[in-house]
Amino acid sequence: MVDLLKINADLSVIFVSALGVILSVLLVMGIKKVKIDDPRMNEISSYIKGGAMAYLYRQYRILAIFLIVMFALLCFVPGLGFGVAVAFLFGAVLSCTAGYMGMRTAVISNVRTAESAKKGLGAAFKIAFSGGAVMGILVVSIGAFGVALVSYIMRLIDPNVDVDIVNQLLTGFSLGASSVALFCRVGGGIYTKAADVGADLVGKVEAGIPEDDPKNPAVIADNVGDNVGDVAGMGADLFESYVGCIIAALLLAADSQNVIQAYHILLLVAGGLFASFIGIAITRLLKTKNAAVSLNIGTYLSSALFVGLSFLVFSKNVYFFLCVLCGIVAGVLIGKLTEIYTSSQYKTVKKIAKSGETGSATNILSGYAAGMKSTVWPILVIAIVIVVSYSLGLMTDSKFGEAAQHCGHIGVVLAALGMLATVGMIVSVDAYGPIADNAGGIAQMSGLDDSVREITDNLDSVGNTTAAIGKGFSIGSAALTSLALIVSYTHAVGLTTINIFDANVLGGLLIGGMLSYLFSALTINSVSKAANDMISEVRRQFKQKPGIMAGTDKPDYEKCVDISTKAAIREMILPGVIAIAAPVIVGIIPALGKEALAGLLIGATLTGVLQAISMSNSGGAWDNAKKYVEEGHHGGKNSEAHKASVIGDTVGDPLKDTAGPSLNILIKLMSIVAVVFAPLFL
Amino acid sequence: MVDLLKINADLSVIFVSALGVILSVLLVMGIKKVKIDDPRMNEISSYIKGGAMAYLYRQYRILAIFLIVMFALLCFVPGLGFGVAVAFLFGAVLSCTAGYMGMRTAVISNVRTAESAKKGLGAAFKIAFSGGAVMGILVVSIGAFGVALVSYIMRLIDPNVDVDIVNQLLTGFSLGASSVALFCRVGGGIYTKAADVGADLVGKVEAGIPEDDPKNPAVIADNVGDNVGDVAGMGADLFESYVGCIIAALLLAADSQNVIQAYHILLLVAGGLFASFIGIAITRLLKTKNAAVSLNIGTYLSSALFVGLSFLVFSKNVYFFLCVLCGIVAGVLIGKLTEIYTSSQYKTVKKIAKSGETGSATNILSGYAAGMKSTVWPILVIAIVIVVSYSLGLMTDSKFGEAAQHCGHIGVVLAALGMLATVGMIVSVDAYGPIADNAGGIAQMSGLDDSVREITDNLDSVGNTTAAIGKGFSIGSAALTSLALIVSYTHAVGLTTINIFDANVLGGLLIGGMLSYLFSALTINSVSKAANDMISEVRRQFKQKPGIMAGTDKPDYEKCVDISTKAAIREMILPGVIAIAAPVIVGIIPALGKEALAGLLIGATLTGVLQAISMSNSGGAWDNAKKYVEEGHHGGKNSEAHKASVIGDTVGDPLKDTAGPSLNILIKLMSIVAVVFAPLFL
Repeated sequence: MVDLLKINADLSVIFVSALGVILSVLLVMGIKKVKIDDPRMNEISSYIKGGAMAYLYRQYRILAIFLIVMFALLCFVPGLGFGVAVAFLFGAVLSCTAGYMGMRTAVISNVRTAESAKKGLGAAFKIAFSGGAVMGILVVSIGAFGVALVSYIMRLIDPNVDVDIVNQLLTGFSLGASSVALFCRVGGGIYTKAADVGADLVGKVEAGIPEDDPKNPAVIADNVGDNVGDVAGMGADLFESYVGCIIAALLLAADSQNVIQAYHILLLVAGGLFASFIGIAITRLLKTKNAAVSLNIGTYLSSALFVGLSFLVFSKNVYFFLCVLCGIVAGVLIGKLTEIYTSSQYKTVKKIAKSGETGSATNILSGYAAGMKSTVWPILVIAIVIVVSYSLGLMTDSKFGEAAQHCGHIGVVLAALGMLATVGMIVSVDAYGPIADNAGGIAQMSGLDDSVREITDNLDSVGNTTAAIGKGFSIGSAALTSLALIVSYTHAVGLTTINIFDANVLGGLLIGGMLSYLFSALTINSVSKAANDMISEVRRQFKQKPGIMAGTDKPDYEKCVDISTKAAIREMILPGVIAIAAPVIVGIIPALGKEALAGLLIGATLTGVLQAISMSNSGGAWDNAKKYVEEGHHGGKNSEAHKASVIGDTVGDPLKDTAGPSLNILIKLMSIVAVVFAPLFL
Repeated sequence: MVDLLKINADLSVIFVSALGVILSVLLVMGIKKVKIDDPRMNEISSYIKGGAMAYLYRQYRILAIFLIVMFALLCFVPGLGFGVAVAFLFGAVLSCTAGYMGMRTAVISNVRTAESAKKGLGAAFKIAFSGGAVMGILVVSIGAFGVALVSYIMRLIDPNVDVDIVNQLLTGFSLGASSVALFCRVGGGIYTKAADVGADLVGKVEAGIPEDDPKNPAVIADNVGDNVGDVAGMGADLFESYVGCIIAALLLAADSQNVIQAYHILLLVAGGLFASFIGIAITRLLKTKNAAVSLNIGTYLSSALFVGLSFLVFSKNVYFFLCVLCGIVAGVLIGKLTEIYTSSQYKTVKKIAKSGETGSATNILSGYAAGMKSTVWPILVIAIVIVVSYSLGLMTDSKFGEAAQHCGHIGVVLAALGMLATVGMIVSVDAYGPIADNAGGIAQMSGLDDSVREITDNLDSVGNTTAAIGKGFSIGSAALTSLALIVSYTHAVGLTTINIFDANVLGGLLIGGMLSYLFSALTINSVSKAANDMISEVRRQFKQKPGIMAGTDKPDYEKCVDISTKAAIREMILPGVIAIAAPVIVGIIPALGKEALAGLLIGATLTGVLQAISMSNSGGAWDNAKKYVEEGHHGGKNSEAHKASVIGDTVGDPLKDTAGPSLNILIKLMSIVAVVFAPLFL
C-alpha cells in the first residue's frame, strides 16, 4: 500500500504538472486571440520582444559555457560522478525552459494588454494576469515535474534503488536550477536597473522628456529590463526556492526513519500545484472591476484550498499539518508586513515623503532607517515560525518513538514547504506587474489615448504593491529554504551539532555574514558602472543626432539594449563565481573545514535575510514616496520634496531590484553548493 | 610565591594607575600654563565649556535615576544581591568620573590650543595632544584601578575569598561601566549630530554663512557636540571595552583550572598601562613638525613596548604570548584598513567624489556600496584572529593536561586583551581630534588670524584620519570583547555548546541580528527628529532677530544648546531600555531561554560588527570625499559634485557618529547584561 502510494505520489505530481502545462497553453491561446492592428504598437512590441530574446540568448550562451565547465567538474568530483552531473544539467535546462517560455509569453502579453485596455479595465486585467499566470504555472509545474521525473525514472530503472542515490541526483538537479537562477537574477537585476537609471538620469532629468518617451534611446532597454529582471529573474528565483525546498524536504524525509515519507512531500507538492491552478483559474474567470481585489481573492482562495489539501495529506498527524499551516500563515503575514512598510497608504512612506521637504539628505536617511526598522516584524515572524514548527515537529516524537530524532527539523522544512506550496499563485501575481508596466510603456510610446494609459497605470500601481509583497515572500521563503538545505548539508557531512563555540564555526559565521555585504556592494557597483555606460551612450546619441529631440530622427534603441546586455553579462560573472567558490574553498581548507562551512552558511543566511529585507523595503518605500509626492503631496511635482524623492528612488532602485533579490539567491545557492559538494568535505 | 605575585598583581595595577593619575595632573598643569588674554576667546570658550558641562550634569541626573532603579533591581534579583549592586554603582561612578574629568580637560584645552597655534604648529599640537591624553590616561587608569581595587579589597576582607564571588562583583562593576557608556554614546551621538546637521542645513545651506560663524545660533551647540559626542562618548565606549575585556579574561582564568591565573591578566593590564603612558609621554615630548608622524611614533612605540612586556608576562608560555601578539597586530591592521577605505589618499574616496559628478544618487550609492565592501578585510582579520588565537590556545593543552578545556577561549580573550591593552594611547590620539576641531572653531569665531586657522585645520585633518582609525579599532575590540563576554555567559549558565541546530538558538540568532538593525534605525531617526527641532529653532531666531545676520544682535546660543541637550536625553532612553531589557526578556521566556539568549548575543555581535563597520566607513568616506571635492577636485566648491558630496556627508554623519558607534555599546552591553543576570536564567 505504501509502495503503491509512493509511485502514485510521483505520478500524481507528474500528472498535476501536466495539467499545469495544458492550463498554460490555454492561457497563451487566450492571450493570442487579441490581435494588434496598430503598426506602431507592433513595431514597439517587436523591439521589446527582440531585445528581451536577444538578451536571453546571449545569457544562455554564457550560461552554456558555465554549465559545461560545472558539468565536467561534477563528473570528476569524488563521490559525485556522471549521474549528478546529468541531473545538474537537467535542472539547469528546465529552469531555462521555464524562464524562456514565461518570458516569451510576457513579451506578447504586454502589447495585448495595452490593446485590451482600449476595451476597459476588466479586459486588460485578464490579459496581463494571464501573461503572469503562464510564468507562475510554468515555474511550479516544470519544477515539480523535474523533481518527480528524476525520482520516477530512477525507480523505474531499479524499483529497489537506494533512496540516497535518488536524493543525490536531486541535489544535482537543484544545483542546476540554482546556478541558472543566480545568473538570471543578478544579470537581470543589473540589466533592468542600468537601463532604468540611465533612461531616467539623461532622459527625464537632463533632457526633460517624460518617462517612456520614444525619443529616449534607452526607453526600449528600460522596458526590456522589466521583463528580464522582474519576470525572468523573479521566476528563476522562486523556481530555485521551490525546487530547493522540495528537495530539502525529501532529503530530511529519507533520514527520518519513516516518521515522514517521500510520498507525503510529493502529495503536498501536488496539492499546492492544484491549489495554485484553481486560484489562477478563478482569478482569470472573475469579472474584474478592481485588480487588487481580484488578485487577493485568487491568492486567499488558493491558500485556503491548500490548507484543506494539506490536512488530507497529514490527516493522521495533526502536528505536521500545523507546521504546514504555520508556513502558510507566515507567508501571508510577511507579505502583508512588507506592504505596510512600502505602501503609501501607511505612515512610513508618508514620513519619508515629508522628510524630502528638508532635502535629499533627510529623505535618504529616513528611507534608510525605515528599511532597517522594517526588519523587525518579518524577522520575528520567521523566528516564531522556526521555534513553533520545530516544537510541533518534536511533538510527533512521542507518537513515532525515539528514532524520529529529526522531527524538529522536519517541522521547519514543512513550514517552508507550506509557505512555498502555492508559489504558482504568487509568481502569477508578481509577474503580472511588469506586464502591466510594459503595457503602459507601449501605450505611451504608441501615442494611444490617455484613457488607455490611465487603465494601464491603474493596473501597474496594483502591480507595484504585489511586487513588494512578492519580494517579502521571496525573502521569507529563501530564508526557510536555506535553513532546510543547511540542515541537509549537516546530515550529509555527519555533523550532529554546529557549535558556535568552535572557533572555526565562529570564523565561518563572520565570513558568511560578510559575504552578503560584499555581494550587495558588488551588485550595486555593477549597476552604477553599467548605468554610467548607458548615460554616456544616451548623451552621445542626443548630441550626435539632434534630430531625435526634434522628432525627425530615430534613436538607436539596439545600441542601448546591447550596452545593458553586455554590462549585465559581464558583471554577473564575479558575484556568480564568488557564490559558488566561497563555500567550496572554506569547506576544503583544512584550517576551516566543514564546521566553518556550516557557520558560513548560517552567517550568510542571517545577514542575507536582514540585508535583503532592509534594502528591498527601503527601495520600495522610496519608490512609493516619490509617487506619493507626484500625486500632489508636499508640493507635488518639481517641488523641493519631489527632487529629493527622485534621488531617493534612484538610490533605492538597485537596492530593491538588484542587490536585495540577489541575496535570496546567494544564500540558497551557497547552501545547495554545500550539500552537493558534501563528499569533498568528509 | 604564586600567592605573593597575585597580591602584587593587584597592587601593581593600582600602582601604575596611580602613576597615570599623576601623569594626567602634570598634563593638565601644562595645559593650564597657557593663559588666554583675548576676551572674545574667553567668552566663546566659556560658552562651549558651559554647554558641555550643562549637558553632562543633565545627563548624569537622568543617569542617576536609572542607576538607582537598576541598583534596586540588582539587590532583589535572586543570586545577585547587595554586593553586586554596590559594584555596579562603583563601575558607573568611575565611568562618569573618567568622562567628566576627561571632558573638563578637553574644554579647557581647545581654547588653549587655539592660543598656542599663534606660536606655531608644535606648540598647538602639544596642547591638543595633552588634552586628549588626559582622557586616554584616565580611561585606562580609572578602569584598571576599579577592577584591581574590587579584587584587592575583597582579598583584604577575606584572604580566602571565593574567586567566583569576586568575579560576580566584577561583572556588576562592568555592567555599571557599560550602562553609563550606552547613555553617553547614544546621547552624545544624538547631541552632536543634531547640532551639526541643524547648524549646517540652516547656516551653511540656507543662510550661506561659513562653518563656525558666530552668527549661527547653533554654532556653540555644534562645538559642544564635538566634546560630548567625540570625547566623552568615545571615552565611555572604550572604557567599557577595556573593563569588559579585562573582566571576561578574569572570569575565564578562574574557570581555567590554573592554566592561566588572574595575576597573568593583571600583569598584562599593568604592562599595557605602562606602555601607553610611555607612548603618550614620548609623543608629548617630541619636537613636532608633522602631527601625523608624531602620533604614529607614539602609537607604534607603545605597541612595541607592550609586545616586550607581554612576552615577559608569558615567558613560560609562548603560545599565550602569541595570542596577545595576534591581538596587537590585528588592532593595528584594522586601523590601517579603516584608513584605506576612508582617507582621500586612496581610491575608494576618490571614486565616491567622482561619482558625485552624476548627482547625489550616484554619490550615495557608491558610498553605501563602499561601506559594505569595506567590511571584507576587517572581518577576515577578526575571523583569522579568532581561529588562530583559538588554535594557539589549544596548543597549550598538551602542556597543562586535559583539564585545560577552555584554553582555546582563553587564547581568544588574550587576543582581545592584546588589542585593548594600549587603548590609553588610542584614546589619547582619538580625543585629540575634537580638541583640534574645537580650536579651529574658536579661532574662527574669535576672528583670529588666518594663519592660526590654518594650523588648527592641519591638526584637525590629521585628527579626522585618527578618528577613523579609532572607530575601526573600537569596532574590532568591541567584537572580541563581546565574544569573550559571551563565552563567560555560557560558562555562567552552564552551556557547553551553543548548537545552531537548536531552534531556540536559531530564533535567538535571528532576533539578535535584527536588534542591530532596529537599534541603528532608532538612533538615526532620533538624530533626524532632533535635527528638525534644531532647524526650526535656528530658522526662528534668524526670522525674529534680523539683527543677527546684520551683526547688531547676538544669537541665543543657550536655546540651541538646550534643544540638543533635551533631544539627546529624551531620545537615548528607548534604545537604552531595549538594550538592557531584550536579553533579560529572551532569557526569561521559557519558550526561548538561555540557549536563545546565547543565539541572540551571537546574532547581535555578527550584524552589529558588520553594520558598524559598514556605516562608519560609509560615513567617513563621504566626509572625506566632500573635503576632497572642496580641495578643488571635480569642479571644487559649489560644483554639482560638491552639492552631491555635501548631501553624502550629511547622510553619513549620523551613520558614522551615532548609529555605528552605538552598536559597539549595544553588543557589549547585551553580553554583560547576560553575564550579570545569568542566575535568572538557570
